[in-house]
Amino acid sequence: MQTLLENVRPWGGPAADIRISDGVIASIAPRTSDSAVAGDPATRFIDGQGLLALPGFVNAHAHLDKSWWGKPWVSYGGEATTLGRIAHEREHRGELGIPSVDSAVALLGALVAQGTTAFRSHVDVDLGVGLDGIQVVRDAVGALGVPVALEIVAFPQDGVLRRPGVLDLLDRAAAEGADHVGGLDPASIDRDPVGQLDALFDIADRRGVGVDIHLHDGGELGAFQYELIIERTLATGLAGRVNVAHGFAIGELAPARQQKLIEGMREAGVSITTVAPINAPRLPLDALRAAGVPVGLGTDGIRDLWGPYGDGDLLRLATRLAQLSGARRDDELTAAVRLATSDAAGFVGRASHDLVVGSPADIVLLDAENVPEALVAAPPRRLVLVGGVEFPVA
Amino acid sequence: MQTLLENVRPWGGPAADIRISDGVIASIAPRTSDSAVAGDPATRFIDGQGLLALPGFVNAHAHLDKSWWGKPWVSYGGEATTLGRIAHEREHRGELGIPSVDSAVALLGALVAQGTTAFRSHVDVDLGVGLDGIQVVRDAVGALGVPVALEIVAFPQDGVLRRPGVLDLLDRAAAEGADHVGGLDPASIDRDPVGQLDALFDIADRRGVGVDIHLHDGGELGAFQYELIIERTLATGLAGRVNVAHGFAIGELAPARQQKLIEGMREAGVSITTVAPINAPRLPLDALRAAGVPVGLGTDGIRDLWGPYGDGDLLRLATRLAQLSGARRDDELTAAVRLATSDAAGFVGRASHDLVVGSPADIVLLDAENVPEALVAAPPRRLVLVGGVEFPVA
Repeated sequence: MQTLLENVRPWGGPAADIRISDGVIASIAPRTSDSAVAGDPATRFIDGQGLLALPGFVNAHAHLDKSWWGKPWVSYGGEATTLGRIAHEREHRGELGIPSVDSAVALLGALVAQGTTAFRSHVDVDLGVGLDGIQVVRDAVGALGVPVALEIVAFPQDGVLRRPGVLDLLDRAAAEGADHVGGLDPASIDRDPVGQLDALFDIADRRGVGVDIHLHDGGELGAFQYELIIERTLATGLAGRVNVAHGFAIGELAPARQQKLIEGMREAGVSITTVAPINAPRLPLDALRAAGVPVGLGTDGIRDLWGPYGDGDLLRLATRLAQLSGARRDDELTAAVRLATSDAAGFVGRASHDLVVGSPADIVLLDAENVPEALVAAPPRRLVLVGGVEFPVA
Repeated sequence: MQTLLENVRPWGGPAADIRISDGVIASIAPRTSDSAVAGDPATRFIDGQGLLALPGFVNAHAHLDKSWWGKPWVSYGGEATTLGRIAHEREHRGELGIPSVDSAVALLGALVAQGTTAFRSHVDVDLGVGLDGIQVVRDAVGALGVPVALEIVAFPQDGVLRRPGVLDLLDRAAAEGADHVGGLDPASIDRDPVGQLDALFDIADRRGVGVDIHLHDGGELGAFQYELIIERTLATGLAGRVNVAHGFAIGELAPARQQKLIEGMREAGVSITTVAPINAPRLPLDALRAAGVPVGLGTDGIRDLWGPYGDGDLLRLATRLAQLSGARRDDELTAAVRLATSDAAGFVGRASHDLVVGSPADIVLLDAENVPEALVAAPPRRLVLVGGVEFPVA
């Protein structure tokens, strides 16, 4: 069975027909050529109504196991520190039925309905839930009925070395198919940056998985840990498989020091993911891109025990990232949409994630004149295809 | 003719019936009491379906004359400086038919459909358009068919003293009914902070209007102009009628210096409006509120020659303000909605703008469990009443 998505404007260009076969984009033809298979019973036709077509959005930093989305309102009650929030979450998640497949499906359904078709999700791995969360997220994605892309980061939210047993859990997660081992503020949480990082890179090296480390630590303490990560990436040859998440420190450094870190990331093959925070030092987005360091965009947690914010709309988040970086020109606005879609293929293990032949048929239609308008307006999604399969829009 | 808005939850409280008479809230009764006038032919009934009711949103800093909303996309092309953008706008607005009633109606329609029912709008007054923009905005509001509240700030976007003739225009605007004279960076644009401010306060004092000054200047230069404004407010006795717009400088000061300015604002009766910018120093929101300094929230320009951003949704803007100020607890989230509604009455010349008897019947219904959820989700507006008159929602 083929699908012909007729009369859409890929990336705001001229109207085209997109043929989808086996979940993959098989051809993109100018709309002027009449479809030869009109009426073909083996082809499903979708009228794209001249809408703008974008690739599915890529959520490069999600926490799909944590949310209370779809449940009655949960008032925030934790202490306003990272350690306080970690403790608060571990104390109360059980009461909310977190993690569970139902919870994760509720959140995922809302996210896919907004056009996100690929996720890199950190999933809590700790002495309380063990590896259960990973299976929960896998099962939830499986329950969606569309071939959403998923990479799993086994995430030691409660710490690594400070919680004996967690390293073994991470090792087991990697052995059992997690795509990355995670980490968390090796200095400020575990109090042993070298110890945590050595241990994580050892697992990654032995198991052939990636590393994706939450790094909230600021200033020179954060910068030092960037350096440790860069050194270990070079030493293990894990180029292209190591990511710093948040990495606020780089926004606080003087330009010359910042540039040196960026050079180090480029040389070692270390990427960075941001959640476009509005209360953090400004990420040097232009310099990172100029150096060719991949930058991914993610939602972070959404309505969880860390805080009540978030609707999961990656396009709206791309608007915020563009605003944060001072983008106003059309090419800058378009680049922000690229960052959240085609440029993020590597964050979800794909060679290509775009409106091109051979890419998975992850396609979002929306009513916008052009890509810049799609970015600033973030209009409702009119159609979402995941691997050529339609998912109901919000 | 009365209206009975049945079965709504004012501020998320118990279900109630709101009776509206002559455009004003006449009573709010618990839903348990059966309406005695059911079937009364002189009463119009609206089924509120148990939705959450909020007061209409107050846009305390708009530029209703500037937008190209509703027109084909306009690529941004100005130089990235305030002076560059001023020149760019003056050069190209004519081509876009700005200002015009049609343009302003297109924008206003979208804003009211999202539940904004009261505006304080700066309107460009300069040697090019003279006072035409003010009439354009008045006519546009008049064309909406609902009693939207409007205060006009005669805004010298192109400068005051540096453009001989503009002071006369501002004086005439005040004589002809503008509610406030505006100003713009007395130091960095006009190069004469004392001169500009003396001239503006002279007009305000003579004409009995307010003062609302755009102050982008940062650091000590901005702080100095805060002081000049405070001194002149005290001298003229214009307490409660003077506002600093943006006022980024206060966010850059050390806490003690910041607190001294806030004390000065409180003593003199100077308010501040913010557009919740994500790239500016953080406004000391808690300290301003603790001191009783009124804080208003506005959209700033939307899709204009200054930049392409903005959808005008005040509720979503309140979400951003809450995030900027680190709000997570329910009371903090609710306070952000209050700031954008009931607490902003004074910015649009109202004694009361709330879901209380005697207030104008500006009421917005939306589907949310409670006020905090309304803030973080900013769901679609289900009903918008302006002075008891329904306006079609987006």
